[in-house]
Amino acid sequence: MNSICNLFNIKYPIIQGGMIWCSGWELAAAVSNAGGLGLIGSGSMNPEVLVEHIRKCKKATDKPFGVNIPLLYPHAEEHIKIVEKEGVGIVFTSAGNPAKYTPWLKEKGIKVAHVIANKKFSKKAMDAGVDALVAEGFEAGGHNGYEETTTMVMIPMIKSMATVPVIAAGGIGSGSAMVAAMSLGADGVQIGSRFVASTESSAHNNFKKTVVAIGDGETYLTMKRVVPVRLVKNEFFNRVHQVAMDGGSKEELSAILGRGRAKLGMFTGDLIEGELEIGQVAGSITSIKSAAEIIEEIIQEYNDRLDDLKKHRF
Amino acid sequence: MNSICNLFNIKYPIIQGGMIWCSGWELAAAVSNAGGLGLIGSGSMNPEVLVEHIRKCKKATDKPFGVNIPLLYPHAEEHIKIVEKEGVGIVFTSAGNPAKYTPWLKEKGIKVAHVIANKKFSKKAMDAGVDALVAEGFEAGGHNGYEETTTMVMIPMIKSMATVPVIAAGGIGSGSAMVAAMSLGADGVQIGSRFVASTESSAHNNFKKTVVAIGDGETYLTMKRVVPVRLVKNEFFNRVHQVAMDGGSKEELSAILGRGRAKLGMFTGDLIEGELEIGQVAGSITSIKSAAEIIEEIIQEYNDRLDDLKKHRF
Repeated sequence: MNSICNLFNIKYPIIQGGMIWCSGWELAAAVSNAGGLGLIGSGSMNPEVLVEHIRKCKKATDKPFGVNIPLLYPHAEEHIKIVEKEGVGIVFTSAGNPAKYTPWLKEKGIKVAHVIANKKFSKKAMDAGVDALVAEGFEAGGHNGYEETTTMVMIPMIKSMATVPVIAAGGIGSGSAMVAAMSLGADGVQIGSRFVASTESSAHNNFKKTVVAIGDGETYLTMKRVVPVRLVKNEFFNRVHQVAMDGGSKEELSAILGRGRAKLGMFTGDLIEGELEIGQVAGSITSIKSAAEIIEEIIQEYNDRLDDLKKHRF
Repeated sequence: MNSICNLFNIKYPIIQGGMIWCSGWELAAAVSNAGGLGLIGSGSMNPEVLVEHIRKCKKATDKPFGVNIPLLYPHAEEHIKIVEKEGVGIVFTSAGNPAKYTPWLKEKGIKVAHVIANKKFSKKAMDAGVDALVAEGFEAGGHNGYEETTTMVMIPMIKSMATVPVIAAGGIGSGSAMVAAMSLGADGVQIGSRFVASTESSAHNNFKKTVVAIGDGETYLTMKRVVPVRLVKNEFFNRVHQVAMDGGSKEELSAILGRGRAKLGMFTGDLIEGELEIGQVAGSITSIKSAAEIIEEIIQEYNDRLDDLKKHRF
């Protein structure tokens, strides 16, 4: 049996990314109901909101689901307590030190996966006792690693040292890409961008339409002196990226960024001034579909591709 | 039959990258003799040197081989005339306008593949009449596209519009990665970095040892205001990259770069002041082997991985 399916007790080793402003209970429940693992993205939620989403998600699915918690966010500790109190069995942590909460979560019987982008943090996460690693490549949307290692290169590197299952993330939005990830050694995949353009995603419709509309080369990793983030090349991006290219300091970049820009773009739908976090693979996304249709399509294409590959033996 | 094998009349759809300072006749002949397609990298050769390499390659193999010609290099036109005169049947062009020489080469019966990194140039190349596209991702070594699209994302994008076979390049140095590329829709692969660390590569031994020694995160794409290039993070890199991060102009960066730095690093073996062009996948390369062993290993792992994947159907 597939180790990720086994670990989370799910049908397909497809994890939906717990993205800010996109991954509420509706998306998480829809993905879990369709046989994947839905994640509530708590990075854009206050504690009360998170409680509400967890309770609604429980009512909407009897399948396992999890919560994504970016460890550097102000509410991280409160969110971790809420997850335990509300009886959520799975936590995906990112953007922070895995040693901080993993032992406590494990003690409470909660399964923990941690997002990494290099070998050093993989080791740290495994030392802390995580159950799985999410290895996220440069092509992924939103916040990203400093090394800029791509999914194609990262998965074999991490797999070669991993003592726990490895979930590939970044650039995966189709069954073919899932086959690619599995052939590189991944045990499962995490899919973000494709689910942004789903009917159940809480992203603003303007943002969903943008994800469908953009083509190749229309996202870019910028603001490396603050924290690298992959954005759609809109007007806000052009402004901040020009300053970055001109050698702008962390302080200058942070001042331009200001506060609440991801919400403005992804949730309020301001395509000009908002921060629009999405992966490169958006260039291949051409439709908004339900999470169930997306998963069905991915698994169908995955199996078809596997059958087709047999002919390509040398 | 595989379309790339068919096009070039080779056993395996493995093209060896025509890399400057690394891909002389010895490497090209060894790769062609082992069933792949060897390419002489003419970008670091004077016309006389290219003639010598072509003649030696012909003596060393009766299998097809080709010449890589970066179209923006000063000797491009002379090199193209030489290729025709010496009866080489295959040309890979890169870094320049495919419309310039493709029709002339095709008229002479020469097969042409062109390296691209986005849809726009794929169309241009196909309009010019190329026989194949090399789609090269962000993780590749040396000069690279401005869009920073990774191999994982680029292959399906290019395949979806291609009317000619697509060769995937960037991040591929193993049989597993070759399976990944083929599952993304590639018809063949181009492998560069892995062949830098081959016995037949003309790279300086210091550089070969560096390729074997470096781990993850030890290459980086820099000098984006001149032309993006992926280098080992050595002392020269640190200096030029600092200036780039501080907003240095094209002129400032070009002045630091100076002339002959790639030769200094890759051919003369100066690991401190030289420019060391290599792909991210170097982080997974751990040995120097003969080209024949490398190809045998890749094909073995490729077939094993295909067999193994059958078990992962859902």
